[in-house]
Amino acid sequence: MTAKSGLSRRGLLGLAGAGVVGAGAGFAIDRFVVPADATGSAPSTIYPFHGEHQAGVTTAAQDRLHFAAYDVSDISRAELVSLLKDWSAAAARMTAGRPVGDGAIDGQKDAPPDDTGEALDLPPAGLTITFGFGPSLFDHRFGLEDKRPAALIDLPHFPGDALIDELVGGDLCIQACSDDPQVAFHAIRTLSRIAFGRASIRWSQLGFGRTSSTTRAQVTPRNLFGFKDGTANVKAEDTARVTDHVWVPRGDSAAWMTGGSYLVSRKIRMTIETWDRTALREQERVIGRSKGEGAPLSGGSEFTEPDFAKLGHGAVAIDAGAHVRLSHPKQNDGALLLRRGYNFVDGNDDLGRLNAGLFFIAFQRDPRTQFVPIQLRLAKNDQMNEYIRHVGSGIFAVPPGAAVGGYVGQTLFG
Amino acid sequence: MTAKSGLSRRGLLGLAGAGVVGAGAGFAIDRFVVPADATGSAPSTIYPFHGEHQAGVTTAAQDRLHFAAYDVSDISRAELVSLLKDWSAAAARMTAGRPVGDGAIDGQKDAPPDDTGEALDLPPAGLTITFGFGPSLFDHRFGLEDKRPAALIDLPHFPGDALIDELVGGDLCIQACSDDPQVAFHAIRTLSRIAFGRASIRWSQLGFGRTSSTTRAQVTPRNLFGFKDGTANVKAEDTARVTDHVWVPRGDSAAWMTGGSYLVSRKIRMTIETWDRTALREQERVIGRSKGEGAPLSGGSEFTEPDFAKLGHGAVAIDAGAHVRLSHPKQNDGALLLRRGYNFVDGNDDLGRLNAGLFFIAFQRDPRTQFVPIQLRLAKNDQMNEYIRHVGSGIFAVPPGAAVGGYVGQTLFG
Repeated sequence: MTAKSGLSRRGLLGLAGAGVVGAGAGFAIDRFVVPADATGSAPSTIYPFHGEHQAGVTTAAQDRLHFAAYDVSDISRAELVSLLKDWSAAAARMTAGRPVGDGAIDGQKDAPPDDTGEALDLPPAGLTITFGFGPSLFDHRFGLEDKRPAALIDLPHFPGDALIDELVGGDLCIQACSDDPQVAFHAIRTLSRIAFGRASIRWSQLGFGRTSSTTRAQVTPRNLFGFKDGTANVKAEDTARVTDHVWVPRGDSAAWMTGGSYLVSRKIRMTIETWDRTALREQERVIGRSKGEGAPLSGGSEFTEPDFAKLGHGAVAIDAGAHVRLSHPKQNDGALLLRRGYNFVDGNDDLGRLNAGLFFIAFQRDPRTQFVPIQLRLAKNDQMNEYIRHVGSGIFAVPPGAAVGGYVGQTLFG
Repeated sequence: MTAKSGLSRRGLLGLAGAGVVGAGAGFAIDRFVVPADATGSAPSTIYPFHGEHQAGVTTAAQDRLHFAAYDVSDISRAELVSLLKDWSAAAARMTAGRPVGDGAIDGQKDAPPDDTGEALDLPPAGLTITFGFGPSLFDHRFGLEDKRPAALIDLPHFPGDALIDELVGGDLCIQACSDDPQVAFHAIRTLSRIAFGRASIRWSQLGFGRTSSTTRAQVTPRNLFGFKDGTANVKAEDTARVTDHVWVPRGDSAAWMTGGSYLVSRKIRMTIETWDRTALREQERVIGRSKGEGAPLSGGSEFTEPDFAKLGHGAVAIDAGAHVRLSHPKQNDGALLLRRGYNFVDGNDDLGRLNAGLFFIAFQRDPRTQFVPIQLRLAKNDQMNEYIRHVGSGIFAVPPGAAVGGYVGQTLFG
């Protein structure tokens, strides 16, 4: 891998190797920063692929998402394990900013290049690749009927669901996040290519402008309703909350999931044009926060705790059906989610309306006591329902991270 | 507009005003840099909206695109002029990093907010907004039959075209480019909202990872074939080339287009999966350049001029049907284009294949002698045709820039 061959990822001379060695050295190192180089590239981040947990959960939310759900083809259990090994090896290289394969593009003229090339000159850009297993994987095809975790439920039908079959489910999923959309795309393209004949994309989603902060260092971003989103999210620094609400603990009935988590995705289309014709008072009433500052309508500033009892104008300041009230842990027996969603825009529909909204992603220890009751409450009573439509849905068991030399899913198959 | 109201665009305190004043001061100032601020935001760029030419043509290509083509509703000429005035006013504010309207969100609770809000905390991020007029605008509805420029032709059918009606044409177009996708989206959403009842989106396209450099300061990016794209592009620094090939000169038969340009867009889907199974030798033969370095197959490095006569292995080193040969000015009577395309990924198709490719945008003085003959030659002979399909198409007259106090299109309607 030399600069001359054009195969070095920019800014990585020497450092990619360092990143890989570092990842192997232990779980304590959770990121490397590749400094700005002589070509003027900005500093870039490497998150090691190997570790106790998969990266891409508590990792500071990157700016771009490419998510794909896959159907597994008619293959054997051994072939499925091979796929997971191949995926893990490729993911370890790509997250370190290295091309897949042996990188010797210019030497093998008679075969397709190992690496498709579109990320060759790009920095690692904080790429994380997170794998998950859907409920449908745990069937007789792979002899996994007994290994399905109780927490990996089939999601119930929620009131108002407008799910489109083609946007639901999947045997496997991959969440690729990066600060560069071309790096995230390269990951999904490469992993789809590796899966050729073994698994194929069922549905996929691109996203941008993360809709939740996952660390205190991040400014709260805004969703496409124009409101700050994720103010009360679980943050990586809240180690007790992360331990209690995100990771599957030792002693769980599905022992292979220890250190893993459960991912729920929902594609939520917003009826942008209707929202944009709605008075500010109504928008704020629906959310329960002010639009500019993001302060709860009970007063204070963005990070002031909402006071749900407080009165204003003869009624509670924060409506009974306000989104902030219904989704708050106080109203949900303390249930919390680590949200990691993204805005999406899929062009326009045939009426010229923007096909846009929020691709919701949440991580949790157990969807039965976290996502499901929260979403049931929201689906029944949230004033926001007038302006949104849930069109896609997925639930996936996200196994623990791979050890160096291992692969994601080894605790299940190994 | 104060920080307290939450309405100041981050990093813009005071500077947005300076930008607007600067833009008014003359055409010589072509950009402002907003320095990094105390919140840790990166430096950001403002390109003034007003000027001799519209921004977004020779402007250093930003990283993200949101493009939309519009059909005009059944409105009068006066209403169309009002729309263009409203669009120009909003574009001037947004490109300066300011919210649209009076910015007083928190004061007008009984009306929808003037600004939809999702870009409130974001920097100006180099936003440019470029307006164009399609051939269909020049009809009896608006009394423009006599004003249609001869250069604004209906594009001919090219061999192999697989155009989808819903992705072709449009009375008006807007190209929004920014280094932040949320800022580009905010522009298209806001302008679509302003157009409500007067024009609606016919088709739209998001893009990322610009596929052409437009200044020498930019590294040549790669398209989704994994090859560098735009090595031989017209660069902003080549003032003679820009003058000769991009801008409509004084004395043109359509005098209102002086200082304008013509935009041709083509949505080019790549059959990614087929390409990825093709040997490197074939990939390089198709393009006529090496994949790693981007050097012409006749030898040298990226910026070496291709030697089309040079022999290798008993034949010409660069194939007769190689893309680099057929698109080269030497093979096209010196015709050049300023390309400003973007990669796109629209999820996947129902066979699980990535719906991805290149959204080609080119600016030129006259499509009759530039895009059309080049594309005819490519459509007939380009070896690349086996791996691509043109599915969308547009041609638009891009009028000169607006003066301060004026609007884009004033030379046509004024």
